[in-house]
Formats: sequence, C-alpha cells, structure tokens
Amino acid sequence: MTTPPLLRIDRERLWANLMQLKEIGGYDDPGGLRGVRRLTLTEEDAQARRLVIGWMEEVGLRVRVDRIGNVFGTRRATEPALPCVLIGSHIDTVATAGAFDGTLGVLGAIEVVRALDAAGIRTRRPVEVAFFTEEEGVRFGTDMLGSAVAAGRIDLDDALKLTDADGISVRDALADIGFDGTTPVPRPAPHAYLECHIEQGPVLAAAGVDVAVVTGVQGISWQRLTLDGVPAHAGTTPIELRRDAGLAAAEVAVELRRMCDSGDFGALRATVGRLELTPGQTNVIPARAVLTVDLRNPDDAHQAAAEAHLAAFVEAVERRHGVRASWERLARTPMVPFDPGVQEVLVACADRLGLAHLRTMSGAGHDAQEMAALCPTAMVFVAGEHGGISHNPREYSRPEVCGHGVDVLANAVLVLAEAVTS
Amino acid sequence: MTTPPLLRIDRERLWANLMQLKEIGGYDDPGGLRGVRRLTLTEEDAQARRLVIGWMEEVGLRVRVDRIGNVFGTRRATEPALPCVLIGSHIDTVATAGAFDGTLGVLGAIEVVRALDAAGIRTRRPVEVAFFTEEEGVRFGTDMLGSAVAAGRIDLDDALKLTDADGISVRDALADIGFDGTTPVPRPAPHAYLECHIEQGPVLAAAGVDVAVVTGVQGISWQRLTLDGVPAHAGTTPIELRRDAGLAAAEVAVELRRMCDSGDFGALRATVGRLELTPGQTNVIPARAVLTVDLRNPDDAHQAAAEAHLAAFVEAVERRHGVRASWERLARTPMVPFDPGVQEVLVACADRLGLAHLRTMSGAGHDAQEMAALCPTAMVFVAGEHGGISHNPREYSRPEVCGHGVDVLANAVLVLAEAVTS
Repeated sequence: MTTPPLLRIDRERLWANLMQLKEIGGYDDPGGLRGVRRLTLTEEDAQARRLVIGWMEEVGLRVRVDRIGNVFGTRRATEPALPCVLIGSHIDTVATAGAFDGTLGVLGAIEVVRALDAAGIRTRRPVEVAFFTEEEGVRFGTDMLGSAVAAGRIDLDDALKLTDADGISVRDALADIGFDGTTPVPRPAPHAYLECHIEQGPVLAAAGVDVAVVTGVQGISWQRLTLDGVPAHAGTTPIELRRDAGLAAAEVAVELRRMCDSGDFGALRATVGRLELTPGQTNVIPARAVLTVDLRNPDDAHQAAAEAHLAAFVEAVERRHGVRASWERLARTPMVPFDPGVQEVLVACADRLGLAHLRTMSGAGHDAQEMAALCPTAMVFVAGEHGGISHNPREYSRPEVCGHGVDVLANAVLVLAEAVTS
Repeated sequence: MTTPPLLRIDRERLWANLMQLKEIGGYDDPGGLRGVRRLTLTEEDAQARRLVIGWMEEVGLRVRVDRIGNVFGTRRATEPALPCVLIGSHIDTVATAGAFDGTLGVLGAIEVVRALDAAGIRTRRPVEVAFFTEEEGVRFGTDMLGSAVAAGRIDLDDALKLTDADGISVRDALADIGFDGTTPVPRPAPHAYLECHIEQGPVLAAAGVDVAVVTGVQGISWQRLTLDGVPAHAGTTPIELRRDAGLAAAEVAVELRRMCDSGDFGALRATVGRLELTPGQTNVIPARAVLTVDLRNPDDAHQAAAEAHLAAFVEAVERRHGVRASWERLARTPMVPFDPGVQEVLVACADRLGLAHLRTMSGAGHDAQEMAALCPTAMVFVAGEHGGISHNPREYSRPEVCGHGVDVLANAVLVLAEAVTS
C-alpha cells in the first residue's frame, strides 16, 4: 500500500457548521449557557436533518433515507460496487445537550468529504456519510435504535411500534416529518465503519492528549434493586430489631465501590445513580429502598463475576438485615471490541499527524457498537473540557481538538477507501 | 406509710371508652383497617374534647381550660390546697393514627378516678386529670406544645402565633373551637406527674412483658446533611476521578450503624430516614445527596460524642471523595431523666400487682418530659402488638394489657396522692 497524502480538514468550516447546527433546538439554560434540545423525529430534528442533508448534497453526495429514518449519502468512487467506507454518527440530542455529542461525527464526516474533494482525491471504494435515528434513546426509550435496525439487531417492525411518552409511534413520527424512507434495512455490510465522537469523560484531558483510538465499548449492566424492610419508629426501635431497607441499600452502594477498588473485577465501574427511600421521614426507619446499579466493564468475564458477587452480597444483606431483595433487569450488553486492524489504521494516522494519543475503551454506548456487527469498526475520541462533561450545555471541545479528531478520521478514510493515486 | 389497698380498674369500661373515642375522626384506611385522624384544635378534636370533658364531669372532676387549651379536671381531696398528683396525656392524633397513642393515658386517668370513687378512697392531695394541646406537633409543627407552655418552656405568645399549613394561628384555632381558656400558664407545680402510654416500639413484646417503668426520654438530635459532589457520566468517568455524593452519603449511613454496634456511644440509635439523590438517573453519578440523621441516646455525653465523631467522619468523607458537606440543625433535646422516687413507686405497684415488668427509656417524646421540668415525673408503658407499630391504624394493645398499665397508674396515684385510710 502506498502512503497517501496527509489530509487536514478545515477547522473553521467544521466549527461554523457545528455552531450553526446547534441553534436548531437551541435554548438558553438557567445558568446563562446556550443548550440544545433536539429530540429525535421532532420538528427540530427534521429541521436539522434538512440542514445536514443540504450540506451533504452540496458536496455531491447521493442521499437516501432508510425505513427507520437513517440517512446515508454516498460519494462517487472508481469502483462503486465495492462495499463502502461508512463514517457518521447522530444528530439527535438529549433534552439538555451541548453542541458536540454526535454532531461532531456527522459534520466531521461531511468535512472529510470536502477535504477529499479539495485535495482532488478519488477512492476505489465509495465513502458514505451516515446519521442514525434516535441514538440517544430519550424519546422512544431505546438507544442506538436506528443503527441497531440498520445492523439487523432490532427488527424494523418492533422499532416502528415503539412509542414516546405521548403515545406517538416511531412509525407515525417518521411519517410526520417526512423521513419514512424506502431504503431497506438491514443495510448492506460496509467495508469498514468509522466514527469520531467526543469522549464524554475526563480520561483524555487527564492524560493531556487531544485524541484517542477507541478499542471497544464496555459491557453495560443495568439493574434495579428493591429492598423491602419494615418501617418503624426511629426513636423506639432497638438497633438489633431493625429491618432497615435504607441501611441495606447503603451497604450495597459501599460494597460496589469496594469492588471497583479491589481490582478483583478488572476495570469495573459501578454507580448507584438512583436511590429512593420510602416513606422518607426523618424519624421513620425506611421500609423500602429502590436503587439502580450501573455496572460497566471492558471484560465480560469480569462483568459476570461482578454481577455474581453483587447478587451474593445482597443475599447476605437480606439475611443480615432481615430485608427482602428483588431484582429487575433494565439493560445488559456485552463488551463490543472494535477491529484491531481499523484501530491500527487510526493509530498510524494519528502518528503521521503528530498527535499524541492513547487507546481507551468507551464507557458510553455509540452507533459504532451496532455497526461493529456488520463490518470492521473503530472510533476516534476527542477530549472535552470541564472534565469531559456531556449531556449538558457545558459540553465543550475546542475547535482545534475537534479538528484533530476529524483529521484522523479523514486520513483513515483515505487508507480504508483506498485513495487512487492518479 | 401504710400500704394502701390494691386497686384494679375496670378493663371493659376503659376499652369501651377507647373504642368510643376512636370513632371521632375515624376513617377507613386503604388496608381495610379503621384509622383515626384527629389533628389538634380541629372540629374532630373539639368533639373529642367535649366527649372526654363529659366523662371527666361525670366523675365529679372540676374542669378548667388554660390559655393554650390544655384541659385539667380536679378531684376533691382532704387537703385541697396541696399540690396535686397530675395524670394525663393527649387526645390529638397524627393524620394516620390508631386508637391508643395518648388516649390511653387520658381515658386511663379518668378510669383511675372512677376506681378511686368505686373503692370509696379519699386522698390528701387532689388528683388531677389532664389532656394537653398539640402533643403530636403535626398541625402547628411543634410537638408537646401544650405541655411545654404549661411547663413554661415555650412562651404563651410564641405558641399562640404558630400557624398551620393554611395560615391559621393557634390563637384563632383555639377560639374557633371555643377552647381559648382563661386558666393562666405556666401552671402551678404538681406534686408529681404520671403518664401511662403505649410503648410505640418492640422492646416490651420482645422481652415478654406487658408493662414497663420508664426511666426517662432519650436525647434527640436531628440534622440534615447535604453532600455536594460533581455529576458525571457513569460509563465514562473513572472511579478515581469521581466525586460521588451518593456514595459519600452511603458511607455515612453505614458508619452510623457501625457506631451503634460499636458500643462506643452507649445505647445510641441512629437512623437515616430520608436520602435524596440529585439528579437521580441510572447513568449519572449523583451530584448531590441530602440525608437526615436522627440520633437518639439515653446519655447526653454519649450523644455529644456521637455527634462529634460523625462530624469528623464526614470531614474525612469530604476529603476522600472530594465532596462538600453542609449541616443543618433540625432539632436537639437533651435526655430527660424521670424521677427515681416516682419510678420506685411504679415498680412497687407493678410488683404488688404481680406484673412482670422492665425499665426502659422512651425513644419517643411525651408530655411527661415537659412536666418533668415542673415536678417529679415518671411514665408507665404498655406493650403493643405488631412490633409496637404506632402512628398507623395497625397500632394495637390488648384490653388486658391496657388494663395492666392503668392498674399500675391507679395504685401509684394511691401512694403519691396519699390515700386517706379512714
């Protein structure tokens, strides 16, 4: 393979696109910041879709919409029948979003095409730009919905039947905004899938690097644990006669942290994000505690061991405190490893660009984990400010850093789509 | 002192009175039980007051109402100028009450007078029956309000200015139901105060006894602790970079239990009854935890040591987890010891009645703790079913057990009021 030329995208144009897109669904948050609320398949999303499709068509992409509303735009290639190199992400947002989550990968992909055009580069394989429906899962309750349907993991009819809080189905919402496309799902397997995304965490900034090559997506386990004890008077009930559901819950939360610190479960991350006590009165021993347990692990065996240890610990808590535990499974996905070969391409590009980088596993879910079922896949992360805060108007990545991430993407596309040196 | 005759009250009459009173404010709870809702100075309370005053007058008590609405009824004595032996409790209830809390002490006191009359017993000192306004504190926010005013701890004008949730003042509420009495407060010091009350806890039942002599009321410390951390993504934030307010709160709850179990703080009882996490999402590390800490201790030095230890522990938690703690004091009362001499009288009476008994400290507050500032005071507890559940329609003490408690009360009155053997 001959070494292709080194591409650098136009940082100012990328930034201008990001800033323009963020005004669709933009709102002023109470802290004086400008936030974005652009839930999937709303009128705001439709407006954003039309803006982005306009940019895609401006650079000559042939745009089509599939049956779940995913949008693909294909660049001409010298061998158009070959499987494409797909690059993209999503443009839907959570209710209190910033300007970068998802959009960087989509507008960055368009910018890659612009850079290819500007450099007069043709490729053997088509380059395709994609944005997927309902990555966030905020409106219809299932994240990565569009990419999961495109990859064949979720059945189209099941997806179309999902409803939002007002009872509106995905099917009707797609029709309402005119994005009930006709391109079949699942989609054909690409040659490779690449996605540039903000890290949404503090690891890159802590390490002092702007970009990272993502090795995969952690396994995720979400469970809801209900602990039932006996309500009793805080003043009159001796310690040894208590059946305190709140204390039992606290012991679970403390044990989860101990498990993380122990190293016995690999790089486990455990979080109790919700904890509700009933009746919730100062002088009443809690009768019931309902808590969520979020476990992340880059290793499925470690994840399973953590779940098993936790279950045994809770059984011991039941005996110790005379409480009754019941579990509800909310979500469980195994670790999704990204393709080592594609990772190596990304590493080589970062090196050629002179960018310090590291390898990291994603703690959050991304469309890439669905595409990984179809084709060799990897991701580029860019560092965020303020500890990598995301899903928040404070979400921010510097223009230069965004540019670095998309530069890596662009040069990897050159390699994977096989630039034709003429 | 000659040994007075052994009195036994009429259990059936006492029970009939309790059952009659509970219908005033009675309601059918969702569980199919009959509950009582008779908040202080409401129309239901007024109706109950009139019924009870009727019973007091029926046995010849001279009834008067003081300026905070407390009701006292005095029995004739051979030396009417001597300080009285006061017996009583309250007839107001919480919103979801049973039939026994407070009422047993008031209707039991009337039953004592009936038993004295039936036995033809005169006493040197007057016997007085009392019921106090707003013991529960549910309507106007200050518990033991009437007895505290009667004892001089709370100023009358301050008490009259308190308002309920609708902005109605104690002053207006008293006038509305015609219980704005004229008897001055604070009241003259009695010779002794006795109160029979349900235990509202499981200790007596666990020990297999029906009655207990109460040694005092535990010190109570209520604080609200707010822990501020940093919200972050549960998937992407490494364990060592977290500032998890929820975990910090859980560690406090677990430490409180350890403190109780350690014995280092005497007979400490600690409860976290409320714990609220913000934002409370499965995949977001809690930014804020607000919890209440309820500490009870029969020993003020141990209570102070527990508070000091907890404060130091929370400082260590702040450092360990990078969270910021702030404390708010909600309530603090020292331990109130009851009079050893009066306790001995109660013990002797229980012994003479052949009742197995124990000594216990009250975990809950009672009018007796206010009266203890005026005169030698002690209480009799009777055992409750269902773990001593109270403030709940399931609250229940068997007729025989109620009778045992009031028997002890009656015979102690004989001793303290000095029965005249003629």
